[in-house]
Amino acid sequence: MKQERLILITNDDGIYAPGIWHLKRALQSLGQIVVAAPLVEKSAVGHAITLSDPLRVMEVERDGVFFGYAINGTPADCVKLAARCLLERKPDLVVSGINQGPNTATNIIYSGTVSAAAEGAIMGIPSFAVSLASFTKKEFDYAAKFSRKLAQFVLENGLPQGTLLNVNVPAVPEEEIEGVVVTRQGKGRYEEAFDKRVDPNNRVYYWLTGKRMILDQGDDVDDLVVMEKKVSVTPIHYDLTDYSFIEELKTWPLQK
Amino acid sequence: MKQERLILITNDDGIYAPGIWHLKRALQSLGQIVVAAPLVEKSAVGHAITLSDPLRVMEVERDGVFFGYAINGTPADCVKLAARCLLERKPDLVVSGINQGPNTATNIIYSGTVSAAAEGAIMGIPSFAVSLASFTKKEFDYAAKFSRKLAQFVLENGLPQGTLLNVNVPAVPEEEIEGVVVTRQGKGRYEEAFDKRVDPNNRVYYWLTGKRMILDQGDDVDDLVVMEKKVSVTPIHYDLTDYSFIEELKTWPLQK
Repeated sequence: MKQERLILITNDDGIYAPGIWHLKRALQSLGQIVVAAPLVEKSAVGHAITLSDPLRVMEVERDGVFFGYAINGTPADCVKLAARCLLERKPDLVVSGINQGPNTATNIIYSGTVSAAAEGAIMGIPSFAVSLASFTKKEFDYAAKFSRKLAQFVLENGLPQGTLLNVNVPAVPEEEIEGVVVTRQGKGRYEEAFDKRVDPNNRVYYWLTGKRMILDQGDDVDDLVVMEKKVSVTPIHYDLTDYSFIEELKTWPLQK
Repeated sequence: MKQERLILITNDDGIYAPGIWHLKRALQSLGQIVVAAPLVEKSAVGHAITLSDPLRVMEVERDGVFFGYAINGTPADCVKLAARCLLERKPDLVVSGINQGPNTATNIIYSGTVSAAAEGAIMGIPSFAVSLASFTKKEFDYAAKFSRKLAQFVLENGLPQGTLLNVNVPAVPEEEIEGVVVTRQGKGRYEEAFDKRVDPNNRVYYWLTGKRMILDQGDDVDDLVVMEKKVSVTPIHYDLTDYSFIEELKTWPLQK
């Protein structure tokens, strides 16, 4: 008999977020699901890992039944700890999400959601991240359905070593979804500003704020595709080398 | 008269670390130096930014004189806040370091040091990160000297938009340095393990641990080059798209 598939689910919005509940429900029938997610929201933690503090694991219920393991760490910690200590064997798939808010363009470098899937890929596990492209709308149904289709395909066909998928789904009902597009990471980013305030004790503090800038054109750019009500699927990897600059850099006078 | 160069220095070991002191001293004569660094150590924070908490800025002395601004945030926060609020204008150069410990191979994705320089590059500022390849040896002299040489060259010649340099210097005296090599990011990573313990209240906790794995061969790989007592200089960027997998991914049956 074929061994049952083992799927690890995590996120960065925390184990009590709505998106991870929708994701677990959608993948339920594909195999054994284990949830291991941060106890509290860890958005914009990037690819942080916890070296200076001990990690603890708590069993968490939702709807009166066991839902998963909550960990006092980052999304990347959750994947490492679950794969090494909480699961009997290395999972067949890691899915991170469903994040509330898009993870596209330059902003994916800040994403705990994407970093969790990257952690899976680095450990040699087929992995993908899924985000709903709205910070407020709870339109998770098509994102969950698409996650199931993609999970099934990845379980059957795998992914290249070191490559993960970054999926962004428009926050609209299924009938309004205009298609699915394979994309590249856009160059758009936030133009930051800081809101400078004074607290009741007359001490200055700053809130990070800013507005999204779209810096691309073309029909294969992640953030533009999502704005057209299409699902964006971007293959990403963690070789950050800028090969295009290597030959020029070799001409720089840097020797002793 | 030519405007004086403005150089922003940061790190992830915290404003009181030895490496940032050596870096500031080395770059002193190249222009006006502003230090803005985390108040406390922020190692392995990856590309985290602080969205949920206000940021505060403190003026810090070292050796009895003003040294720089300490910020209760991550290295990426420090670059954003300094460039937007603390400096009169966008700096001409961002240098992050000198980190105590190497930032090579897959592990650079966890690096606060590298992420600070990346933040500079994203903001359109020529930027590099410098790390000393030892967690314990305080052999900062050649790393500081090399940083000065590189800073001077980058100030004069710039870097391509979106490209930053990741420098790793062996922790040996200058006379033992065997050269400088332009490298690519290695595939090496940590093989993690968790040390499971029980606290005095009988609660289980875990420490992340592990051993470094070298997974490459060749004379152009960052971590291997440093082991040969050579300085490694890697050009990196933040387009994570795995272009090599796009065409195959387009054949997947993912449409509605």
